[in-house]
Amino acid sequence: MPDLVCDACGNTYPAGDRQHCDCGETLWYELATDFAWPAESGSLWAYGDLLPASDPVGIERAAGGTPLVRAPRLDDYAGCRIRVKDESANPTGSFKDRGTAVATAALRERGADAIGTVSHGNMAMSTAAHAASAGMDAVVLVPDDIPEERLGHIARYDPELYAVSGDYGRLYEASFSLAPTFVNSDSPLRVAGQKTTVAELLHQFDGAPDAVVVPVSSGGHASGTWKAVRELHAAGALDSVPELHFVQAAACDPIARAYRNGDDTVTPVADGGGETVAYSIANANPPSGNRVLRAARDTGGSVLSVDDDAIRDAQRALATHAGLAVEAASATSLAAVRELTAEGRLDASDDVAVVATGTGFRERPPTPDTVHRVTQGELREQF
Amino acid sequence: MPDLVCDACGNTYPAGDRQHCDCGETLWYELATDFAWPAESGSLWAYGDLLPASDPVGIERAAGGTPLVRAPRLDDYAGCRIRVKDESANPTGSFKDRGTAVATAALRERGADAIGTVSHGNMAMSTAAHAASAGMDAVVLVPDDIPEERLGHIARYDPELYAVSGDYGRLYEASFSLAPTFVNSDSPLRVAGQKTTVAELLHQFDGAPDAVVVPVSSGGHASGTWKAVRELHAAGALDSVPELHFVQAAACDPIARAYRNGDDTVTPVADGGGETVAYSIANANPPSGNRVLRAARDTGGSVLSVDDDAIRDAQRALATHAGLAVEAASATSLAAVRELTAEGRLDASDDVAVVATGTGFRERPPTPDTVHRVTQGELREQF
Ligand SMILES: [Zn+2]
Ligand SMILES: [Zn+2]
Repeated sequence: MPDLVCDACGNTYPAGDRQHCDCGETLWYELATDFAWPAESGSLWAYGDLLPASDPVGIERAAGGTPLVRAPRLDDYAGCRIRVKDESANPTGSFKDRGTAVATAALRERGADAIGTVSHGNMAMSTAAHAASAGMDAVVLVPDDIPEERLGHIARYDPELYAVSGDYGRLYEASFSLAPTFVNSDSPLRVAGQKTTVAELLHQFDGAPDAVVVPVSSGGHASGTWKAVRELHAAGALDSVPELHFVQAAACDPIARAYRNGDDTVTPVADGGGETVAYSIANANPPSGNRVLRAARDTGGSVLSVDDDAIRDAQRALATHAGLAVEAASATSLAAVRELTAEGRLDASDDVAVVATGTGFRERPPTPDTVHRVTQGELREQF
Repeated sequence: MPDLVCDACGNTYPAGDRQHCDCGETLWYELATDFAWPAESGSLWAYGDLLPASDPVGIERAAGGTPLVRAPRLDDYAGCRIRVKDESANPTGSFKDRGTAVATAALRERGADAIGTVSHGNMAMSTAAHAASAGMDAVVLVPDDIPEERLGHIARYDPELYAVSGDYGRLYEASFSLAPTFVNSDSPLRVAGQKTTVAELLHQFDGAPDAVVVPVSSGGHASGTWKAVRELHAAGALDSVPELHFVQAAACDPIARAYRNGDDTVTPVADGGGETVAYSIANANPPSGNRVLRAARDTGGSVLSVDDDAIRDAQRALATHAGLAVEAASATSLAAVRELTAEGRLDASDDVAVVATGTGFRERPPTPDTVHRVTQGELREQF
């Protein structure tokens, strides 16, 4: 197993359950120096050389291998050539399965038979499902104000489910001192698995597009994105590095604020942030936020935020012009591209890949307002 | 484009919009005589030699390529070695995308810019989504008693949506005389695409498992399953043929009744059949039902039915022992395996693949009854 390293201060630590550097930043696994693109890519395990685990079972084997969809009917809307990395094709409908699959496989290799997580949505479902598939115990902590229906989606997989009152950020911090091992959204094992979203994307595109746009919450997926680009470039498997743009919902955008202010560290949103349709990425105190700032600046990208009207509009466009019903949080990435082309940062000659992080099927759809109610006789007169 | 042929009476017709033989049975496209397994299989287009279309765009390109998940924790429950073909990984979450992708691509090759369908669920969503992605018009006819939430999931993709009153079976028949071309559940183009579910499964298994179990409604997917096995065997790409077992919900099981009675033709359920949790496959007058009887008998399989308690139980087992949240209709296939092993038709030495036809994410989950509601202090005392 590779060492853990801190990209901020350079400290290294032996592989294990440690998640944070003494300087406070989140650790990640040391990069692979040797890598060649695999011949096939049906799952994330095609990129095994980048991963700290190697013996998947059940749905772990099915994680990743999601399509990169060229969506020409979105080009006008976006102002550039759009591809969508459709992460809803994962076993539980989101990119979270990549991190979970690697984490559960790695924990078993270390002799563990249980995994814990703190989440109010996709990660909770993903962790519970992978544990169910592998025969591990899952301890899932959710905030006690989670909507009943989402709780039902998590409970289906039958984890040990705790709805916990009190501050969510404090719960996240406290979980690391509990047993079993808690693999939260920016944990090193999870980030290692989440590298494969963009590794696969670059493989499918056959190189680097001009820009990759990813929604950001804790900073875990963003970390994996940057880490993959660094590793593949260092290994000579990627000639150029794409701009990495990260996007938040305007109602809760501490990383974008820090980026706009030119800060090196993220200041938490004091009141927890406002409500947003993109609830999956509303994180007032993102634990890997500082690393996201480094990733954006290092690659010539940016961190931006988009408001709920723009998010809903992009979500509609993805369904009506690409046939993809993604969750609101996923649509932030297309809304961000529209913003970047409006500002002239990207233009019609650019190839841009947006990551659609998760399915919209678990969200209640809008009430339809354009249904024709007819008899069979009336129908025949129409056609 | 290949000819259309009737497997019941042997008549052939030139390729085109014709759907039915003069004898009344549904036509399908003449089989491929030349086939070699492709090196890669990321989408259904890897099996292009079996398909009457060749130029996919948008999400058409992403249809298929779903995982075949080995699920060892279900073996005890099922009584044999279980694999699950997880069709929820398709762009709109069901196997319907396979038929739709081939149909929309083929229609465009013939110069059409529109597609119609009659459906109350997955097929409606799939058709609307593929049309949206390809820039085609979609006319979607649904029964007027469809639940509002499901209507919302269809409407998202912005098809021309008609909620039609009156008898559903008559609407299905009448649709074939309307413009645009209606590609319903057992139409030849759709069946051609749906062949790829089992073609891919056989490729992933590297040959024929002892049995393949598929839920059956109109008989379209069942037709595709049998057709693929026939074509691959005739082309020398498959040494042996798996038993094909088809399963219906007991509340509405006209094909299983005909099978039990030793009949060659299916008698429609007079009153439309009872309610079932497996609403996606409750078809009282299945247009390709007779062909399903031929498929079961030809392969040494069967047609059986399972009740709602068994379906719900299998649905729970798939979530809690394989990490797969499938829709109730999909769980009929696992419930059927349990029945077949209980009867001694299959046993612990058999490799059996069940097709999970679609996602459970659009179904309201059961209300969870095992959530621990605690404070952070109480939590710390537990772990
Ligand atoms: Zn450090
Ligand atoms: Zn005939």
